Amino acid sequence: MSKPTAQTAEERLIARHFKPLATHPGAFGLNDDAAVLAPPVGCDLVLKTDGVIAGVHFFPDDPADLVAKKVLRMNLSDLAAKGAKPLGFLLAIALPQGISEEWLASFARGLGEDAKHFGCPLLGGDTDRTPGPVSVSVTAFGAVPQGTMVRRAGATAGQCVVVSGSIGDATLGLRLCRDPSLAHHWGLSREEQEHLRARYLLPQPRNALADVVRALAAAAMDVSDGLVGDLGKLCRASGVAAEIDVARVPLSPAAASALAREPALLETILTGGDDYEILATLPRDRVAAFRREASAVGVAVSEIGTVLAGEGGVRIIGANGKPLALTQTSFSHF
Amino acid sequence: MSKPTAQTAEERLIARHFKPLATHPGAFGLNDDAAVLAPPVGCDLVLKTDGVIAGVHFFPDDPADLVAKKVLRMNLSDLAAKGAKPLGFLLAIALPQGISEEWLASFARGLGEDAKHFGCPLLGGDTDRTPGPVSVSVTAFGAVPQGTMVRRAGATAGQCVVVSGSIGDATLGLRLCRDPSLAHHWGLSREEQEHLRARYLLPQPRNALADVVRALAAAAMDVSDGLVGDLGKLCRASGVAAEIDVARVPLSPAAASALAREPALLETILTGGDDYEILATLPRDRVAAFRREASAVGVAVSEIGTVLAGEGGVRIIGANGKPLALTQTSFSHF
Repeated sequence: MSKPTAQTAEERLIARHFKPLATHPGAFGLNDDAAVLAPPVGCDLVLKTDGVIAGVHFFPDDPADLVAKKVLRMNLSDLAAKGAKPLGFLLAIALPQGISEEWLASFARGLGEDAKHFGCPLLGGDTDRTPGPVSVSVTAFGAVPQGTMVRRAGATAGQCVVVSGSIGDATLGLRLCRDPSLAHHWGLSREEQEHLRARYLLPQPRNALADVVRALAAAAMDVSDGLVGDLGKLCRASGVAAEIDVARVPLSPAAASALAREPALLETILTGGDDYEILATLPRDRVAAFRREASAVGVAVSEIGTVLAGEGGVRIIGANGKPLALTQTSFSHF
Repeated sequence: MSKPTAQTAEERLIARHFKPLATHPGAFGLNDDAAVLAPPVGCDLVLKTDGVIAGVHFFPDDPADLVAKKVLRMNLSDLAAKGAKPLGFLLAIALPQGISEEWLASFARGLGEDAKHFGCPLLGGDTDRTPGPVSVSVTAFGAVPQGTMVRRAGATAGQCVVVSGSIGDATLGLRLCRDPSLAHHWGLSREEQEHLRARYLLPQPRNALADVVRALAAAAMDVSDGLVGDLGKLCRASGVAAEIDVARVPLSPAAASALAREPALLETILTGGDDYEILATLPRDRVAAFRREASAVGVAVSEIGTVLAGEGGVRIIGANGKPLALTQTSFSHF
């Protein structure tokens, strides 16, 4: 007979694995029904929720600490693109029967490391059993000075289209995880293979760029569902079109090597997901400043195209100067 | 070949079903990556996330509009118990392949009706495919004047324990859904059967009590995992114990009838989940005011026990004046 004084198994699981992460005072040590968050004076809260499901967004045997980091970073990437500084997050996790203590401990360790690294502590959450696969949903909170969240809507004709870092690594890394023999076919060194896989398993959200984006971008979003499709979404929200120049899309040496060996990968690179780079549009006379300030925090920025009038979508100019047609532009679950 | 200008199927699903619910200006018509929420001046945000999974928290053939209402109300109930006024919510939903348009339309209709009814509009969300069952997670936001969220911690020896409405209806309603023949065994009229089932399918969160709770309660939480277990949680958070008097636990006529026919239901009533009533402790001299103000907004409040010193958990005094022992005190997924 369990005593009325005893904690439930759910409470014990939370206390053991997640309480150490709840360093925010508004989390009340996960000892209440709700959390409290007071945004800094003069700031708006920016809210984002995004999640992952085993077998859909990650391989069931991916290391649990990386799964935790990836789902938090997916949300942090959105905060960065919106110009917001992370404040904290809520975690909703559904666990199948028989999930191991080791998995949970690794998951919580990874989550805790990133919460600390990105200054984004756990505020609270919800833990459930599921007959389905492991499912993790994060709701992240950020702050921007009132009225300054950078929108998708905001692009106007004549602005430059810029993107941070490099494009296509994660989607190539995913292919490599599925079929390691591609490494040989693509002529990749061991370091290049590792680079692509790491870009898939562990995004590097560009939170260091948040202030620059807020100061200089007219419109921005993170690239998570493929460069071309995401630029299409930004264009639709802004009521404009855009043209990008394939030759200027930034590629890592690994992606460039793979593309040289297999030119058909171009579409994969332009439309694959999980880049977690920042895509922005801004007036031409701000591009140098954007690039300089990004470089000061260690992030490369490339000018890849131009915003056009009208609603004609995204036009892609190939290396030969002629428009390219793609068979699919964006990752979609449906 | 899909054009770069076309919306993805995911965007179409969101536009068709969920965009009409996104009436909050900070939702940007679900046309951005994140939402903006500016809490009222001088207020803290209260954050809560709770969800449901088909086959765990609801029957796969439960009406979709009621599933939507239930998951939103579960979260609204927490806001109420914390003394918070609802501001809006985020929705994360995972859908199996082959979910029907009818299901989605019904889900969205129910959600929209409640969002409007409770003044809690959709701010944003996340939609995914899952190989598992339908899974819905809500993150709800409320506001309280700075520093006034009502905590679980706050109960002190000598305070009264009060609870709103009636206890045990939902858990009996769940049994009745599973085995309709119990209606005869429990001697229930058609109306009483309907009452119990409705209490299971559609909680009535006590948001009308939020101001009263904030003004008068020393500690509070909603009763969602069973009265005795939840009071145990409140006591642990407060470092106190409590004693409740079974004869004073408020029962609906339906629950009273069932209990009279089957006395062993007492444990089910005291420990079953899904009540979504407010449990609070407060100094004895505030009980009359609490009851009066609650009554003014149409909610009955019952005094059911007393907070005790020490950490001895929850003692239940039976109708014969002697302590009762329970075999399980609370619903736990683990």
